[in-house]
Amino acid sequence: MPLIASRIASANSATSDFPLNNLPFGVISTAGSPPRCAVAIGDFALDLAALEADGRLDAGAPVFAADRLNPFMALGPAAWARVREQLTTLLAEGAETPIDDALVPLDAVTHHLPFAVSEYTDFYASKMHASNVGTMFRGPENALPPNWLHIPIGYNGRASSVVVSGTDIHRPLGQRKPPDAAAPTFGPSLRMDIELELGAVVGVASPWGAPITVEEADAMIFGYVLLNDWSSRDIQAWEYVPLGPFQGKAFGTTISPWVVTRAALEPFRAPLPPREVPELPYLHQAAPGLYDIHLEVAMEPPGADRETIISRTNYREMYYSSAQQLAHHAVGGCGMRVGDLLGSGTISGPTRGEHGSLLEISWGGKEPFALDTGETRSFIEDGDRLTLRGHCEGEGYRIGFGEATGRILPAVANRWA
Amino acid sequence: MPLIASRIASANSATSDFPLNNLPFGVISTAGSPPRCAVAIGDFALDLAALEADGRLDAGAPVFAADRLNPFMALGPAAWARVREQLTTLLAEGAETPIDDALVPLDAVTHHLPFAVSEYTDFYASKMHASNVGTMFRGPENALPPNWLHIPIGYNGRASSVVVSGTDIHRPLGQRKPPDAAAPTFGPSLRMDIELELGAVVGVASPWGAPITVEEADAMIFGYVLLNDWSSRDIQAWEYVPLGPFQGKAFGTTISPWVVTRAALEPFRAPLPPREVPELPYLHQAAPGLYDIHLEVAMEPPGADRETIISRTNYREMYYSSAQQLAHHAVGGCGMRVGDLLGSGTISGPTRGEHGSLLEISWGGKEPFALDTGETRSFIEDGDRLTLRGHCEGEGYRIGFGEATGRILPAVANRWA
Repeated sequence: MPLIASRIASANSATSDFPLNNLPFGVISTAGSPPRCAVAIGDFALDLAALEADGRLDAGAPVFAADRLNPFMALGPAAWARVREQLTTLLAEGAETPIDDALVPLDAVTHHLPFAVSEYTDFYASKMHASNVGTMFRGPENALPPNWLHIPIGYNGRASSVVVSGTDIHRPLGQRKPPDAAAPTFGPSLRMDIELELGAVVGVASPWGAPITVEEADAMIFGYVLLNDWSSRDIQAWEYVPLGPFQGKAFGTTISPWVVTRAALEPFRAPLPPREVPELPYLHQAAPGLYDIHLEVAMEPPGADRETIISRTNYREMYYSSAQQLAHHAVGGCGMRVGDLLGSGTISGPTRGEHGSLLEISWGGKEPFALDTGETRSFIEDGDRLTLRGHCEGEGYRIGFGEATGRILPAVANRWA
Repeated sequence: MPLIASRIASANSATSDFPLNNLPFGVISTAGSPPRCAVAIGDFALDLAALEADGRLDAGAPVFAADRLNPFMALGPAAWARVREQLTTLLAEGAETPIDDALVPLDAVTHHLPFAVSEYTDFYASKMHASNVGTMFRGPENALPPNWLHIPIGYNGRASSVVVSGTDIHRPLGQRKPPDAAAPTFGPSLRMDIELELGAVVGVASPWGAPITVEEADAMIFGYVLLNDWSSRDIQAWEYVPLGPFQGKAFGTTISPWVVTRAALEPFRAPLPPREVPELPYLHQAAPGLYDIHLEVAMEPPGADRETIISRTNYREMYYSSAQQLAHHAVGGCGMRVGDLLGSGTISGPTRGEHGSLLEISWGGKEPFALDTGETRSFIEDGDRLTLRGHCEGEGYRIGFGEATGRILPAVANRWA
C-alpha cells in the first residue's frame, strides 16, 4: 500500500510518524482546555471532540469528549472502521470540510494516558531474551524453562503504575540482597533497567468463563503502543522465587501516547517463527501473527547534548504473538476487559546490539557499555533518559509509534533510614 | 466490649453473624429493584439507599444508591465513622426512627460483588502453608524460600475474575503436564483446589510514588472479606516457573458478600508472632497486626444432604498482617487505589485439620480424606460445593463474615478437542 496523500502537508513526508495511513489515537489537552481524544496527523493532533461536537465526525455515539479512549474502544470494531474511514476522508488531499479549528500543533499539546488501563499483564515471549535472562538468573543449563516453548508465559502486573510517555519515575526503594550478603537491606534499587516491549490494547471484552480462539483474540485488539516495563533487577532477583516479579516491576511502566491501530499495522504482518515443539491447537495462529516493526532504544545521560542508540531490534523477533497471549490469557475462563494492556515481553534480537534490556546489553552488569558522550553504563543512573521508538517502513511512508520516554529520578526520601 | 442491643431481635442472638456491633457493608438487590448498598443486621439487610433518600442517613454525599461501595469508601475514614455512628443510633434498642421500609429479609436478597475490584493482589503469608506447599513443590530442603521470613511475598492476581459468594465456577481448561509426561496436554484441570484466605479491602488511595508506613497502611483498610482463591494445582505447577501463578489462579476468586469493617474487628486484634529474623524497619508494626478470627471450610459433594467441615483454623496463624502487606506493596512507589483487594494468603494451622487448602489436607493428593457422606476426596470433583465461614467470638455476640461459597461445575466445551 502506498502513502495516502493528506491535505496536511507534514503528513506526506516519508519520515513522519503520522501519515494519513496511520491515524493513531490518543488523549491530549492544551492550556486551559480539558483532556479529549485526538488522532495524530503529520505535525498536528486533530481534536476529535471538536469534530464530533458539530457532526463532522460520528462514531455512532458521543465518545470523544472524554479523557480516555475506553468509551470509543467499547463501541467495537465496526465503529473503529467507520471512524477511520471518516477521518481518512476528512484528511485526504483535496478534502474541503473545514478542520483548521481542530488542529493543534503537536508541540503545543500535553499527552495523557490514552486509555484507562483495566488490568496490565506482561509476557515473556522473546526466545532470545528468555534465554539470556535465564542464563544469568539460573545458569545456562536452565536458561529456557521447560514450559517456555509450550506456553506464552505471563504474569499479572500493576495497572495503577502505568504512565504516559514523558512521566519521570523515581528509583524505587525496596529490599535487595547481594548473593554474598547474609541478609537483605532496604534502600534505593541499584540495578535499574528497562524492558523494550510492545503493548497490545484490548478493545473488545470477552465474558468471564468463555475461552476464545487466537483468531477471536486478534480481532479483540484495538491497537498497540510502545511499552517500557521499567525493572529493578536487584529487587526482582531477591523477591521473584517462587511467585514471580512484584515490587521489582511495580513502580512504573511507560507507554507511548498514541495507540497505533491494528488496521494501520495490517500491511506489515509478519510470520511467527516455526514452532520447535508440537503446538497445542488452542495456540495455533494461521495468519501471520507478528508485525515488522523496527524498534530502537536511546539513552541520554543528564546534561548530555546527545543521545546514544543502545539497541536496534524488531518485533518480528518474538516467538508468541499478542493474539496467542490473549487467547492463552482467556482460555481458563478469565474475562478480558476493554482497556486491558498486554505487554509483549522484552524484545531482543540475537546480538548484543539488538537486546531489549540493559541486563542483556551489559550482561548482568559485567560488561559496561559506552555512550557517545564517553560515559559508560551497566544500569540506569539518576537523571538518565531512556526513550523507545518504533515504526513500520512502508512504500514512501512509515507507520510510527512516536516515542515512550522517561527519566529515572533519585529515590524519594527513605522514611525508615 | 459486650453486645450492643438492637431493635432488630434477631441481631441480639449470640449466634447471629450480624449483631449491631458488626454492621458489615454490601450490595444487594431484590426482585424488580436495582442493586444498592446495604448493611446486614440480624436476619435482615438494611437498605442504605432508602435511608439516604430522605435524610435518615447522611454520609456527607449521596453514595448509597450505587451498585458498589467504592463511592462510599472513597469518602474516607471520617465518613465511615459518621455512618457507623448514625446506623448504631438508628438500629439501637429503643430507637424510634421508622426503618421498616428499609428492612429486607436476608433470604430475599440477591448479593452482588460489594465493590468494584480495582486490582487484586494475593500474598503468601502463613508460614505453615508456605512450608507445606514448598515441601510438596520443591522438596523439604527448599520448603521455605530464603526470602520468606524477610518479605511478605505477593503477586498480582486478576481482578476481573473476582466474583461474589454463590457464583458457580467452571473447572478451567489449560495446559498441564504430569512430571513423567514428555509434553503437556490441554484439557480440564484435574487438581482443583481452594485457598482459605482473608481479603483486605483498600478504602483510601495512596499516590503513585509515595511509600507509606505500616500504620498508614492499616488506616487505609476499610474492611475485610472471606476470600477463596480457587486454584488449579496442575495448571499452576506447569506454568509457575519462573514468573509465578497465572492461569492456575485466573478463573475465579470468590469473596463473601459483606465487608466487615476494620472498626467492627478492632476489639479482636491479635499479636503477630515473634519475628524469626531481624525485621526491616519499613515492615515493623507496633500494634497487634492480626485478628482473632475463627475460620472453617465446609465441603459438600453433589446430591449430599450434609456438608463436612474439612478444616478449622484462625487468622491468628499468619506471619504477616494485611497492613504489612499493603505497606510492602506501596514501598516502591506503586499507587494504591480505592477498591484494591489484598488476599492474605492461604491460612493454615499446624495440623492436617487446620490446613487451608486441599493440597495440604490430602498432602498433594497422596492421602485422600473422608467426607461424612462416606465419599473420599483428594481434590475437588464436579458439583462439589466449598464454603468458607468466619467469625470473631465476643462476649455474648459474634462478628461474623457470613460465608463465601461456590460450586465447581464441569469444564466448558473444549473448542479444540
